[in-house]
Amino acid sequence: MFITFEGIDGSGKSTQARRLAEALRAGGRDVVLTREPGGSPGAEEIRALVLQGDPDRWSPQTEILLFTAARRDHLERRIDPALKAGQVVICDRFADSTRMYQGLREPGLRALVDELHRLMIGREPDLTFLIDIAAETGLARARDRQGTEERFEDFGLPLQQKMRDGFLALAQAEPQRFRVIDGMRPEAEIAGEVLSLTRRALG
Amino acid sequence: MFITFEGIDGSGKSTQARRLAEALRAGGRDVVLTREPGGSPGAEEIRALVLQGDPDRWSPQTEILLFTAARRDHLERRIDPALKAGQVVICDRFADSTRMYQGLREPGLRALVDELHRLMIGREPDLTFLIDIAAETGLARARDRQGTEERFEDFGLPLQQKMRDGFLALAQAEPQRFRVIDGMRPEAEIAGEVLSLTRRALG
Repeated sequence: MFITFEGIDGSGKSTQARRLAEALRAGGRDVVLTREPGGSPGAEEIRALVLQGDPDRWSPQTEILLFTAARRDHLERRIDPALKAGQVVICDRFADSTRMYQGLREPGLRALVDELHRLMIGREPDLTFLIDIAAETGLARARDRQGTEERFEDFGLPLQQKMRDGFLALAQAEPQRFRVIDGMRPEAEIAGEVLSLTRRALG
Repeated sequence: MFITFEGIDGSGKSTQARRLAEALRAGGRDVVLTREPGGSPGAEEIRALVLQGDPDRWSPQTEILLFTAARRDHLERRIDPALKAGQVVICDRFADSTRMYQGLREPGLRALVDELHRLMIGREPDLTFLIDIAAETGLARARDRQGTEERFEDFGLPLQQKMRDGFLALAQAEPQRFRVIDGMRPEAEIAGEVLSLTRRALG
C-alpha cells in the first residue's frame, strides 16, 4: 500500500507521516517512510539542484521536468521495489504537490504537469491524507522554521490560500483516494484519526 | 537561423561547428556557438548530473527527462533570445542526438523522446548538418580522446553502427532540414562544403 501526505506548508503533514510510520511499525508492519522532492540518492541530488540558489534560476517548465525526473528516480529506485516487497510506503508529498505548487503558477501549467505525469509516472497513491489547515496558520508556522529551502514558503497569504483551495478541490475530485483531515486539532488526535483510517484501508 | 551539427562520436562535428562559426563571423555575421547537453549555466549543471558517476545511476527514462530539462533551459536562456536578437545559433548536438542515443536504447523509448520533445521543446533547427563517417572510424577517434565523460562513447562497434544508421534514417525522413556531409574527407574540404551550404540557406 502506497500512502501519501499532502497539504500546504506548515500543515503538520511531515509529523503525521512520521507518526503513522511509527504506529504501523509498532503494530508489526514493514514500513518505508520517504519524502519528495527527493527520497532516493539521485532524486535528492535533483532536489538540491532545484531548491538551492536563485528562485528564478529555472523556469516553471524546466522545474516541472526536474521534479518529474526526481519522481521517476524515486519511484523506480525506492517506491516500486518496496511495494513489490510487500512493504507499506508512506511518502511526505508526491504528485499532488507538483499539481499545486508548479501546476497553479501560470495558466496552462496544470495541463503540462498532468501530461508529464501520465507519460512518465502514471502511478497514484492508494490513499492520500490531505492535512487541511487555515492558510494563515500554515504561513505563520512555515515562517517560524525558515531554513535554507525556504523558496516555496515565501509566497505570502494569497498563494497559501490558493494552494489550500486547490488541494481541497483535488480531494473533492478524487474522494476514493483522498481523506481530508482537519489539521487544526492537537497532533495526537490527528494521528489517531490517520491511523484508524489507514487500518481500515489496510483491511 | 538555427543550425545544428549531428553525428556519431568522433565524426568531427564539434570541429565543423566551430569552423562554421569562425567563417560566418569572419563574414560579419553575429554568431552564437553552443553545445548540448549543456549550453546554459543551468543546463551545464544538469549535464554534469547526468554524465558523471556510475553509468547506471539513472534509468533511460530519468535520463531523457534530465536531458529534456537541460534542453528547455538552454532554449529559454540562450537559443531563443539569440534567435530573437537576429543572431545565427550554431549548436553542437540537439534533439536528434537524444532521439538516437536515448531513443534507440530500448523499445518504446523513441516514442517517449518524441512525445517529450513535442510537449516541452517543440522546436526544430532550420538546418542540420549530419557529419557522416564509418562507425569504425568514429569509434577509433573517440577512443583516442577518452576523457571523464566517456560514457556515451563506450558502447562498442554495433552501437556506433546502429547510431550511424539511425542518423541517416532521420536525415532521409527530413530532407528539407538535413544535409548529409561525407565526414571521411579532409577537414578543410568538409568545412568548405558546410559553409557553402549554409550561405545558400542564409540567402
